[in-house]
Amino acid sequence: MKETAYSVQRSAFNGRTGVTAPKGFRAAGIACGIKKRKKDLALIYSEVPAVAAGVFTTNRLQAAPVLVTKEHIRPGTARAIIANSGNANCATGKKGFGDARRMASECAGLLGIQPREVLVASTGVIGRPLPMDTVTQGIGSVVRNLSSQGSRSAAEAILTTDHTVKETAVRFSVGGHEISLGGIAKGSGMIAPEMATMLCFITTDAKIAGPVLKRILSQVTETTFNAVTIDGEMSTNDMVLILANGKAGNPAIQSGSAAYQKFSAGLERVMGELAKMMVRDGEGATKFVEIDVTGAKNKGDAKKIAHRIANSLLVKTMLHGADPNWGRIAACVGSSGVPVRMNRVEITIGTILVFLKGEPVEHSREELKQILRNPEIQIGVDLGEGKADFTAWTTDLSADYVKINSGYTS
Amino acid sequence: MKETAYSVQRSAFNGRTGVTAPKGFRAAGIACGIKKRKKDLALIYSEVPAVAAGVFTTNRLQAAPVLVTKEHIRPGTARAIIANSGNANCATGKKGFGDARRMASECAGLLGIQPREVLVASTGVIGRPLPMDTVTQGIGSVVRNLSSQGSRSAAEAILTTDHTVKETAVRFSVGGHEISLGGIAKGSGMIAPEMATMLCFITTDAKIAGPVLKRILSQVTETTFNAVTIDGEMSTNDMVLILANGKAGNPAIQSGSAAYQKFSAGLERVMGELAKMMVRDGEGATKFVEIDVTGAKNKGDAKKIAHRIANSLLVKTMLHGADPNWGRIAACVGSSGVPVRMNRVEITIGTILVFLKGEPVEHSREELKQILRNPEIQIGVDLGEGKADFTAWTTDLSADYVKINSGYTS
Repeated sequence: MKETAYSVQRSAFNGRTGVTAPKGFRAAGIACGIKKRKKDLALIYSEVPAVAAGVFTTNRLQAAPVLVTKEHIRPGTARAIIANSGNANCATGKKGFGDARRMASECAGLLGIQPREVLVASTGVIGRPLPMDTVTQGIGSVVRNLSSQGSRSAAEAILTTDHTVKETAVRFSVGGHEISLGGIAKGSGMIAPEMATMLCFITTDAKIAGPVLKRILSQVTETTFNAVTIDGEMSTNDMVLILANGKAGNPAIQSGSAAYQKFSAGLERVMGELAKMMVRDGEGATKFVEIDVTGAKNKGDAKKIAHRIANSLLVKTMLHGADPNWGRIAACVGSSGVPVRMNRVEITIGTILVFLKGEPVEHSREELKQILRNPEIQIGVDLGEGKADFTAWTTDLSADYVKINSGYTS
Repeated sequence: MKETAYSVQRSAFNGRTGVTAPKGFRAAGIACGIKKRKKDLALIYSEVPAVAAGVFTTNRLQAAPVLVTKEHIRPGTARAIIANSGNANCATGKKGFGDARRMASECAGLLGIQPREVLVASTGVIGRPLPMDTVTQGIGSVVRNLSSQGSRSAAEAILTTDHTVKETAVRFSVGGHEISLGGIAKGSGMIAPEMATMLCFITTDAKIAGPVLKRILSQVTETTFNAVTIDGEMSTNDMVLILANGKAGNPAIQSGSAAYQKFSAGLERVMGELAKMMVRDGEGATKFVEIDVTGAKNKGDAKKIAHRIANSLLVKTMLHGADPNWGRIAACVGSSGVPVRMNRVEITIGTILVFLKGEPVEHSREELKQILRNPEIQIGVDLGEGKADFTAWTTDLSADYVKINSGYTS
């Protein structure tokens, strides 16, 4: 497994965790009644105007909150993120669009800011109207509950079928200024590449210009959340949002500077941690699987093959059952649409080489089974064509996945 | 459901079924010992030289028998098909290629024909060498067992995880000449479009030139086997082979003639029936699902969306649980990569309209659940963009699929 050399500080910084670890941010999560007896409404608030950037699902069916947030974030600033779980407000037509706008304006009214400064997110079942009376009342309550220790409750309030709360933060210094980066995320089913995935909200007290922040966010998304695929599905509601409020007092981070590198690495640690938490909490998942494709002509080819393997039901079930049926991996390499030459391909599972240049390699089936029984499995595929690589993270497929998803709304 | 107006004759013609229904064909299936106590070696033989055509997997990892058969079929004639189950002879390197050649030559020697006249097919686990002593002995036995009633035993011998034997035949007349078309098939997992699927062997006593036969086979494959997708997997071994021995005595079927139409329709019935049998026998399948995409700009778009829906784990599990979570279908329409405009899209499940031009349509959830509880479900998606359409056939996804595939080789 590729792991960062230094570990992410998961503990609180003076009692402040996740999105409230950076200075000047408050958050809250409450149960407003969209779900039965579970937190379902989260708010993140910056005490001062913040630079904002986002990455959004590429699904042509975009939920109302995605459309509203893309509009609100256009000028590159924002102060709050309001997010509900239990209902995606997607495929809900004109009413849904109005409801998403109203979530922003109700929230803005109570916070004394402009509606445009509020970003909106929703996650849950598609195609049902939001219960707006409930949501409106909830907004009042969530604003009253804002706190500098509120990150965890906000992280809880955005969960759907997740089993674990996903929250992390890092702290580092740039020229004597202490900078914090924190985030929360949700997502366990409907996880696929191309921002198809989940909700992730990041805050930082760094001072950084909008275009620089946007570039870093896109780059880091590519190697973290876009590396994740659990079931090949692409959600209608996914977004990663980042707010940077400049409270750390650092000189603005410039492209190409040492501060830029440090900030990028910090963001990669936060988003990478959250992405891995998502994979480990994949619906019905019992294993964490890393697929490293190397030796590709270009990154696109490497990614295509990595995702082809990661999304293969036959590979996923084989990993679930610790069945050493490696031929399924070879079949995926051949069927991804990339013009590979199988007589150059090398396949390893853990430390065992199973296929080399078109020929099977003798190995101990028992040893291979042992490797497949581990909770973390690494699959390596070298194409022998070039120098590009891509790493994908996924899970196995269990009968529990089927159970979870066959009665989601019933 | 689109069904042919007239039913396929499943009963025997004078005791002759499937690939032995046409005149001048014999077949056999035996247990040679690749599998434990199950038939695993099939032979189909034409008493006279036959015109031959084939359609093959597009996987870049092609099994040895696929490579050998593509070479042997090049001149457009053949007399026999030897096929084993229990071992795919794929990813087996040079030895595998030699083994596939030897299967053809052993068979040819005993039949007194040229090795090139024998087509070879294998299906089963990937990456293990064929037990050639066993296979060679088996070839002797299967040749001795050739019979004009042998189709069913051949159909049994090509099965892997299938639960049902797939065999059918039709008979029709062209200008006073009675023509028969018969086929056998296997395939229940690793089923995906683009000939990715399975083995299917067709025989006919029609007289028809090679190029004409090849064109008809490609066309009919597109609307039958390429409409099928069970798990989005693309096998390394799939092929559809057809042998036409001319024993019916008809004048050769010419392109564009009435005979051509009749022959095409007959082949479509045989291959359509076999394809549906495959879907109904999909691994862990409890439902037969037809997805009709209409109103597309072109066939490619329609096909992409139909397969996106058919392969979605979230749609498949929803169908399995009869959960009326139709938003998952809308999300698939949006994420197929086709630039649809969601405000033109119409989605129906059975007789219930659930989504119309960007807006959800009110309906009874109870009625929708009732429809989803049926063993056959039809999903309609109209894109409102053009006149092209495509129909895909698939199944639900059950926990049994996971069970079957997590211990396939163990």
